[in-house]
Amino acid sequence: MPVTQITLLQGYDREVQQRLVDHVSKAVRSVIPAPEAGTTTFIQEVVAYRRDGRFFDQGNAALQSASKVVKNFLAAMQARDLAQAQSHLHADFQMVFPGGQTFHRLEELVAWAKTRYQRVEKTIERVDESWQGDRTVVFCAGRLNGVWPNGTPFDNIRFIDRFEVAAGQLMRQDVWNDLGEHRHA
Amino acid sequence: MPVTQITLLQGYDREVQQRLVDHVSKAVRSVIPAPEAGTTTFIQEVVAYRRDGRFFDQGNAALQSASKVVKNFLAAMQARDLAQAQSHLHADFQMVFPGGQTFHRLEELVAWAKTRYQRVEKTIERVDESWQGDRTVVFCAGRLNGVWPNGTPFDNIRFIDRFEVAAGQLMRQDVWNDLGEHRHA
Amino acid sequence: MPVTQITLLQGYDREVQQRLVDHVSKAVRSVIPAPEAGTTTFIQEVVAYRRDGRFFDQGNAALQSASKVVKNFLAAMQARDLAQAQSHLHADFQMVFPGGQTFHRLEELVAWAKTRYQRVEKTIERVDESWQGDRTVVFCAGRLNGVWPNGTPFDNIRFIDRFEVAAGQLMRQDVWNDLGEHRHA
Amino acid sequence: MPVTQITLLQGYDREVQQRLVDHVSKAVRSVIPAPEAGTTTFIQEVVAYRRDGRFFDQGNAALQSASKVVKNFLAAMQARDLAQAQSHLHADFQMVFPGGQTFHRLEELVAWAKTRYQRVEKTIERVDESWQGDRTVVFCAGRLNGVWPNGTPFDNIRFIDRFEVAAGQLMRQDVWNDLGEHRHA
Amino acid sequence: MPVTQITLLQGYDREVQQRLVDHVSKAVRSVIPAPEAGTTTFIQEVVAYRRDGRFFDQGNAALQSASKVVKNFLAAMQARDLAQAQSHLHADFQMVFPGGQTFHRLEELVAWAKTRYQRVEKTIERVDESWQGDRTVVFCAGRLNGVWPNGTPFDNIRFIDRFEVAAGQLMRQDVWNDLGEHRHA
Amino acid sequence: MPVTQITLLQGYDREVQQRLVDHVSKAVRSVIPAPEAGTTTFIQEVVAYRRDGRFFDQGNAALQSASKVVKNFLAAMQARDLAQAQSHLHADFQMVFPGGQTFHRLEELVAWAKTRYQRVEKTIERVDESWQGDRTVVFCAGRLNGVWPNGTPFDNIRFIDRFEVAAGQLMRQDVWNDLGEHRHA
Repeated sequence: MPVTQITLLQGYDREVQQRLVDHVSKAVRSVIPAPEAGTTTFIQEVVAYRRDGRFFDQGNAALQSASKVVKNFLAAMQARDLAQAQSHLHADFQMVFPGGQTFHRLEELVAWAKTRYQRVEKTIERVDESWQGDRTVVFCAGRLNGVWPNGTPFDNIRFIDRFEVAAGQLMRQDVWNDLGEHRHA
Repeated sequence: MPVTQITLLQGYDREVQQRLVDHVSKAVRSVIPAPEAGTTTFIQEVVAYRRDGRFFDQGNAALQSASKVVKNFLAAMQARDLAQAQSHLHADFQMVFPGGQTFHRLEELVAWAKTRYQRVEKTIERVDESWQGDRTVVFCAGRLNGVWPNGTPFDNIRFIDRFEVAAGQLMRQDVWNDLGEHRHA
Repeated sequence: MPVTQITLLQGYDREVQQRLVDHVSKAVRSVIPAPEAGTTTFIQEVVAYRRDGRFFDQGNAALQSASKVVKNFLAAMQARDLAQAQSHLHADFQMVFPGGQTFHRLEELVAWAKTRYQRVEKTIERVDESWQGDRTVVFCAGRLNGVWPNGTPFDNIRFIDRFEVAAGQLMRQDVWNDLGEHRHA
Repeated sequence: MPVTQITLLQGYDREVQQRLVDHVSKAVRSVIPAPEAGTTTFIQEVVAYRRDGRFFDQGNAALQSASKVVKNFLAAMQARDLAQAQSHLHADFQMVFPGGQTFHRLEELVAWAKTRYQRVEKTIERVDESWQGDRTVVFCAGRLNGVWPNGTPFDNIRFIDRFEVAAGQLMRQDVWNDLGEHRHA
Repeated sequence: MPVTQITLLQGYDREVQQRLVDHVSKAVRSVIPAPEAGTTTFIQEVVAYRRDGRFFDQGNAALQSASKVVKNFLAAMQARDLAQAQSHLHADFQMVFPGGQTFHRLEELVAWAKTRYQRVEKTIERVDESWQGDRTVVFCAGRLNGVWPNGTPFDNIRFIDRFEVAAGQLMRQDVWNDLGEHRHA
Repeated sequence: MPVTQITLLQGYDREVQQRLVDHVSKAVRSVIPAPEAGTTTFIQEVVAYRRDGRFFDQGNAALQSASKVVKNFLAAMQARDLAQAQSHLHADFQMVFPGGQTFHRLEELVAWAKTRYQRVEKTIERVDESWQGDRTVVFCAGRLNGVWPNGTPFDNIRFIDRFEVAAGQLMRQDVWNDLGEHRHA
């Protein structure tokens, strides 16, 4: 135990099924300390379903992996492909950077960043997803390397980004890093 | 849809049941974009269960809420009750603080912190849980206020803590904040 | 087949369970021509349930049997206990009698009836329930006996009443009978 | 809650599934006063089934909608297509008309009706189905218009028909209406 | 996989539940070569059940373990407590012994056995149950020791008994052993 | 009751499904004395399954019927097709014959048998399967006919064979018969 059965209308593809039983198994084990070997989760597909007086025989489209959305955004930013990066953002997207700098447009961020470094690159070491219903919060933690405004290189500087993802779009990004610790060291 | 049935042996209390259906509903909705109104999750209690050739009629004890463990630890630290704080730590506990400072014992942290501020207080604005199977990662984000070593007060400084919790004990804490940004501002 | 499982929160009593599996078995057999021997219906009680973001561990109160409500109303009318009869009526209750006579208050009916017969009694031969979601329609068919205004007795006159019952209250009564056929015969 | 799962062998078509979850949801709500939004019903198709020592992998043919059978019969009668109307009748079919007139053959009815009106037409305002296991009782209520034997037209006269339908055939029809009230008015 | 859910009315005791999930798990694994670790079987107790138009809320009494019935019978025979042994036998009980000797009454067996040995004792090494629906066949295999009619002792002689058990009573016993091989050796 | 649901990944063929619901129904009835008419067993196929941290969407191959394996082996032995017979044997196969004669190779058996009879033929009257998890024990009982070493024919001699079958291979055969009773009669 526990055995968890998820009942869905038919039509979801294998990747979605796999993600779903993975997330649900982990949610179960966050409360019940069963070993992996004793944690069973499966998907029952049903052919017909009625709720709220309405009849359904096809399921909804699944959500994209929130981590993938974030990684795509970060890759586009790294490549300074702002148009591509922008395509992942909700109209109300907001960014908060170290020191509490707040931006709504990527161009603002880019302008401000020039005062911080000539260039920066993120090496992601860890991605954590927090499933919260309407939103999934994705955390990326890792190391920064790049070049200070004065041309000196830096690397191995800790960072963490917190993203709120809703319906496949980024709603918010919060960034913390140790640049402030190192810049003035 | 989706309808999720979690089958457990009997004996879990109401708070555990409530946490379990909450986590599982959220995990389901992280993949299937069903509205809350169409997301049904329930717990079926069974009286007898056999797996791996063994018979069970009582469930495991449930895990404590990982967020609660973290909050208890932080409250004890704030109150500088190191013994109480220590009781939440796994023997292999490790802390990494801004600048990459790494400690294994709370006393080391306390000693180092004196170089950073006379005193500090955390206002937690947001807690996120990431359920990962054997571990739950808890993120606390919020604002710091306190007093610099030179006696000047500070407040409203952003921070985020990342905790790994396993079997009710803290395995690891990673801390980021904007103290470095502000200290030298 | 078919096997039907009804999942409920715990706490319904035996009479309700019995009525529920009876109604559901009949609904199933109205579509699938399975023999009684092959029609299985059971109630699974669950201890905890979440939908629409809310947690429940107790079920709703059950509805009273709509037929019983109707029979109680008819018995009170027969006994001319108008207060008791009135207690079963919704504020918007409406009656339609042969010839299209429409009343909203029992007193109106009683006054009009005096022009039809000195007294009347219903023998119910058949009760049919039509389950329609928010309402259950109850049909009572049978025979009338009584005394014409001129003192002559009558009996064995066909009637049918149609009642709409919602939340345990009568919303509407429609009456048809053969009094018109016989009165002038 | 409630969540109802109907387990069937595979092979029923969409219209049957839709009718089945509709009937069952209504049966459930006739006992448990759950809102539509909280009433979930779905069909689980299984591939193999054993009861009474026999193995099945195909379901029964479904029953036709009893209301549809009745409507088809009434339409054929209106069109005076007696052969077509007859095809819906069980060998033991019986009709009871106002005044208790009882017939077994449509021709008898047609002969008698000539004494009642030159012609009549039914406008159906309401159809109610009562699911009773081996039989479904269908009630049609509405208004009659037509021409009296003396050539005067009439309309807006209340009627109700009660039909017993078993295995797709009419077993019995009982008719009530206000013709007697109006004829002699 | 496989996951097997047995739905029962409430009221069976722990020993019965344990035996049931044990038998069912073994039956499943006789067809699907899943490892024990991946074979999950549990009992769902339901509060109300309808089949064949009848309502139930209490389960049947369970059957006794067929092996236990056989062992009790053999122990009584060994102790030559014929009355006790007889109590386990169905009225139509039949025994077939080596050479095809057929008896219906224990006294006949006892009389015949005197021609075979002065006394005999069974050491049961293996009991196998074959579940066949209305009957369970129990096989006991092991070794005989005892004393030949001429007073010489014997031991370590192979035997197997086959018992048919129905509703807790022995219907039939068939005995094979190597006494014939050894007696004349 | 009881209603048993076996949840499997999809892909098993009809013969396997049939064997599975047959075995499971019999296992259930070995404990709960329900009539056949009230014993319902069905197979739910699911599309996705996770246990032990691994994802599956295809079931295992099913086991062959253990009785069929045994019958094939016996037929090959009867036809003295030792190569074919050998193909059913596990490397550790062991045979124990009347008098406790133990062999590991079919050739040893054949040699020894020559001392027992010129030829022998089995008529199987009864096959019983005992499902034990990793092994199924198959019992064949019936009658031997053949020719004694001295040329005299014999027939109608009782025998029983006990086979242990694991993963479709014979692990062990134990043989009892009345040849010893008759040879010296």
